Amino acid sequence: MAVRATNVKWHQSKVSLEEIENRNGHDGCVIWFTGFSASGKSTIAVELERKLFDLGCNVRILDGDNVRHGLNKDLGFTKEDREENIRRIAEVSKLFRATGMICINAFISPFQKDRDIARDLIDEGHFFEVFVNASIEECITRDPKGMYKKAMAGEIQHFTGISSPYEAPAFPELVVDTEKCNIEECANILVTFLKDKGILRNGK
Amino acid sequence: MAVRATNVKWHQSKVSLEEIENRNGHDGCVIWFTGFSASGKSTIAVELERKLFDLGCNVRILDGDNVRHGLNKDLGFTKEDREENIRRIAEVSKLFRATGMICINAFISPFQKDRDIARDLIDEGHFFEVFVNASIEECITRDPKGMYKKAMAGEIQHFTGISSPYEAPAFPELVVDTEKCNIEECANILVTFLKDKGILRNGK
Repeated sequence: MAVRATNVKWHQSKVSLEEIENRNGHDGCVIWFTGFSASGKSTIAVELERKLFDLGCNVRILDGDNVRHGLNKDLGFTKEDREENIRRIAEVSKLFRATGMICINAFISPFQKDRDIARDLIDEGHFFEVFVNASIEECITRDPKGMYKKAMAGEIQHFTGISSPYEAPAFPELVVDTEKCNIEECANILVTFLKDKGILRNGK
Repeated sequence: MAVRATNVKWHQSKVSLEEIENRNGHDGCVIWFTGFSASGKSTIAVELERKLFDLGCNVRILDGDNVRHGLNKDLGFTKEDREENIRRIAEVSKLFRATGMICINAFISPFQKDRDIARDLIDEGHFFEVFVNASIEECITRDPKGMYKKAMAGEIQHFTGISSPYEAPAFPELVVDTEKCNIEECANILVTFLKDKGILRNGK
């Protein structure tokens, strides 16, 4: 198997990432949303994806559904498996970023350590940890799928914010507060942020 | 963890694959090269990537180097690990295809069973098993990195074609013969093939 790796190292791609990014008019990057269930991560992700696509960007959401039923279907719910789940997602994000894609991830990802693993994999200035902030009380009130109710009744174990801790980001690149801003506003904040960071270029 | 999957299922993307493909002017797909070491897989892959990029396509090679040192770095070289290696590569290819990308894979992938696992993951008409054909005698003569020499001297174990079997594809979508055609010709055959299959559109 070492043979394979050697084999491929030997051949360099004739298309550089720089060339791809120049054509796309934006850099590839990883936007990593973290926050409680019902904080608004996925909803903002969907809105942001649409806005970036409309600006002509190559963008895709890497979602738990795709990943859990495919790449990570061999993983269970032990501590080790949860860590491995995040590690693989981070590695796939890295591959996406290397294709010049804006990769949007929306996972609760409650532990700083796991988010740092993701950050360490991505090149400087192209990983954005975005804290989607809503208080646990607010999220319990929203509870769109009744999950908090079940968690509080003890019907779901290890539920973040109820029976499992959530570590808020120590140094997120951005915080969006979904108690103060609506989804549209949050997505716009993200677009402006990406422009300011030079990820979107050429008038995008 | 089931919570996460449920969470994401609930939110549908507002950007369909059809919309992405219409904008790109081509479908996403997976081109899976298989063949002996030194048959020309990676060289053709690099050439094809360049040609497709120049045609305006979103295309990327998924290479053993990236994958083995990242996503699959926890895997060793047992039979199970080799199978898992291919399974994960196939799952990542599926994710690439779902972003509208033409994903080019170049792995020896000697076993039909493993290639079939990849095929089964990708939607009908978007997985192309391409047999890069050169006889083992020819590959031994080429031996660009002296790997066959080492394998025949017993310095490398389980080397495909020498001490480990290679199962030629039973029903490949395409065969390119690198004893009869040069790299440029093989890459052109692939481009024509993708046009004929309707993967490339809008004059691409």
